[in-house]
Amino acid sequence: MEVILLKKPNIVILGAGYGGMITATRLTKQIGHDANITLVNKHDYHYQTTWLHEPAAGTLSPERTRMPINSVLDLNKIKFVKDEVQEIKREEKKVVLSNGELEYDYLVVGLGSEAETFGVPGVHEHAFSKWTVNGAREVKEHIEYMFAKYNNSPEKKDELLTVIVAGAGFTGIEFIGELSERVPELCAHYDIPREKVKLYVIEAAPTALPGFDPELVEYAMNLLESRGVEFKINCPIKEVTETGVSLANGDEIKASTIVWATGVRGSSIIEKSGFEAMRGRVKVEPDLRAPGHEDIFIIGDCALLINEEINRPYPPTAQIAMQMAEVCASNIKSLMTGGSLKTFTPDIKGTVASLGGKEAIGVVGSRKLFGTSANFMKKMIDNRYLFLLGGPGLVLKRGKNPM
Amino acid sequence: MEVILLKKPNIVILGAGYGGMITATRLTKQIGHDANITLVNKHDYHYQTTWLHEPAAGTLSPERTRMPINSVLDLNKIKFVKDEVQEIKREEKKVVLSNGELEYDYLVVGLGSEAETFGVPGVHEHAFSKWTVNGAREVKEHIEYMFAKYNNSPEKKDELLTVIVAGAGFTGIEFIGELSERVPELCAHYDIPREKVKLYVIEAAPTALPGFDPELVEYAMNLLESRGVEFKINCPIKEVTETGVSLANGDEIKASTIVWATGVRGSSIIEKSGFEAMRGRVKVEPDLRAPGHEDIFIIGDCALLINEEINRPYPPTAQIAMQMAEVCASNIKSLMTGGSLKTFTPDIKGTVASLGGKEAIGVVGSRKLFGTSANFMKKMIDNRYLFLLGGPGLVLKRGKNPM
Repeated sequence: MEVILLKKPNIVILGAGYGGMITATRLTKQIGHDANITLVNKHDYHYQTTWLHEPAAGTLSPERTRMPINSVLDLNKIKFVKDEVQEIKREEKKVVLSNGELEYDYLVVGLGSEAETFGVPGVHEHAFSKWTVNGAREVKEHIEYMFAKYNNSPEKKDELLTVIVAGAGFTGIEFIGELSERVPELCAHYDIPREKVKLYVIEAAPTALPGFDPELVEYAMNLLESRGVEFKINCPIKEVTETGVSLANGDEIKASTIVWATGVRGSSIIEKSGFEAMRGRVKVEPDLRAPGHEDIFIIGDCALLINEEINRPYPPTAQIAMQMAEVCASNIKSLMTGGSLKTFTPDIKGTVASLGGKEAIGVVGSRKLFGTSANFMKKMIDNRYLFLLGGPGLVLKRGKNPM
Repeated sequence: MEVILLKKPNIVILGAGYGGMITATRLTKQIGHDANITLVNKHDYHYQTTWLHEPAAGTLSPERTRMPINSVLDLNKIKFVKDEVQEIKREEKKVVLSNGELEYDYLVVGLGSEAETFGVPGVHEHAFSKWTVNGAREVKEHIEYMFAKYNNSPEKKDELLTVIVAGAGFTGIEFIGELSERVPELCAHYDIPREKVKLYVIEAAPTALPGFDPELVEYAMNLLESRGVEFKINCPIKEVTETGVSLANGDEIKASTIVWATGVRGSSIIEKSGFEAMRGRVKVEPDLRAPGHEDIFIIGDCALLINEEINRPYPPTAQIAMQMAEVCASNIKSLMTGGSLKTFTPDIKGTVASLGGKEAIGVVGSRKLFGTSANFMKKMIDNRYLFLLGGPGLVLKRGKNPM
């Protein structure tokens, strides 16, 4: 009798964001016990980055934006390691963590993004730039502390009530939308006259929400201005200081709260591990593998993908990360079983930006959406993600009521 | 026909605290339109100082501790002036406000108290010492901001999670009671291990809750220690610094939140106006008038009253302020109508200190109360005040359910 010992391959997934979580659910279903699957994440929870403007502004509990990883994944089929990735040792096929190492046969890198500062001094020291559960909570508590401080200090410094959002992209607009909607409530709670609160959105580019239809951009700006938001477009920030921002035009704006939202770059682990990358993003092969690596898939915000139609990279979105995850899981299965690998093509179903309250703007197919219909679509998108991740049960448990 | 022009006397009440509000309600009822009654207060709301440990710890909305003055007083019978008192010009019989002056025939001074620092340096700069609605809100928001900051900073500084309460008197104990009860909830919300949170109560005197029965003090300390509170008794604070406190014994404790609750002194307006006073408190005549002044009554925390039995001043409490207000209103009426003036004698009905959750300790008559029965009594006392102020309607609207 001949015994063939088959060593099961080790599949390691780094990061429990949109890409990592969808990859994990698909692999546990499609491969199950034919491989040792391990998910590594810094926290024992997954969170929905695209919802974080709400807890940051204080309009949603941060608990609503996260879920324990063990509540979504079947830990009989996948091992979860709560640890922080330090480096990927590509030659040795292993991952160095803060408290150990993991060997892999197949690696999925879904390490997400970091704030892009564009070299502006003072961002890390004086601005809030981490768009995470921890980061969002700190922004919320900081703003409330500043409002509480105002009336309790004899000087009543106006800058305590000034919030600057650097960047009029998706994140900046969605955040100021929530915050501007909440300001009247904050003013009532802390006995502050509404006119004392100043909200600025400062953008270096010549338009807010670049890439969006101009009619939608105008709708959004008009709406936000009607709630007291002041836009400074085409207005680069030179420096962030302890007391506010210095603009390239020489002006200074005093503010106690500065939220940095000028866009993201890929995880710095990418460069630290020696991958060739642009701002932390690796230009992946059509099958989502890193160039020159048969065994490493890179998905989500660390993957750079060119939109051939306009010869510019696709923006790093949750939608694309999730679609990449589906292809990545399928390709790993093919590598294990000998099938052919799929080519990734994004299928942009639509984009909706919420503006706080019942307001939003968006594009679905070629259709422009405004106000409540866009808001409805936004909630549908949020719920659809929960459906993709955990089926109808998760939508019922954690979804947003679109009524 | 002979016409006699009678000039109505001007009665001016300074401060809408316990003393001022009860005086105002009694005078409007007993004197009504026979005098021009004016109430001056910094805010357009009255608040219950003795409830403030709850919003400061975040266990009750600050809204529950205050009420608009016009919701309690009948503004057809009393004029309300929202302004800040600067000085009492006794010779000219007028009061200087930030935005004007008021002449009086009878003056009631109920300006309340300020924190007593005992000359310890750094209190005003680095500790929270204002026990007001604004002050309580700032303490709450500061603690939450520090908790939120902890996980979002790479260093995870332990002192962010340390709260020092200076003073183990009534206010300090009630505050740490609420806070210690809330800590598990804060830890869950901000993902903080409970053992990282340090709560200190530091007291210079040889006992916590001086004047309370030793058995009750022991009950309170044991209970609070079981919730993780560390007491340092007989341990004077030498200085409050930007990073914590320096103790007289040479130790230092790092802490981001320092709450100063070592007791109060009377309003500094008292000394500024030339009254002879000890720590802002005027030793009043038995009829509650300031010595040498026929027309000035001083009540509440600005009045000093000796308890002859133990030859020490009565503590400045809401209970005594309210009892003073009744006598003060009656004596003003007598001055106007020619009756004889009453002598004030405090009638201490009992004292209860809440310890957070369903816990409290107290003395009612000669009976000691612990736990839920003391807690029940505390809520009854809070409700009884509302009854005295605004009748059963106010209890129903704003009271605490003692179940």
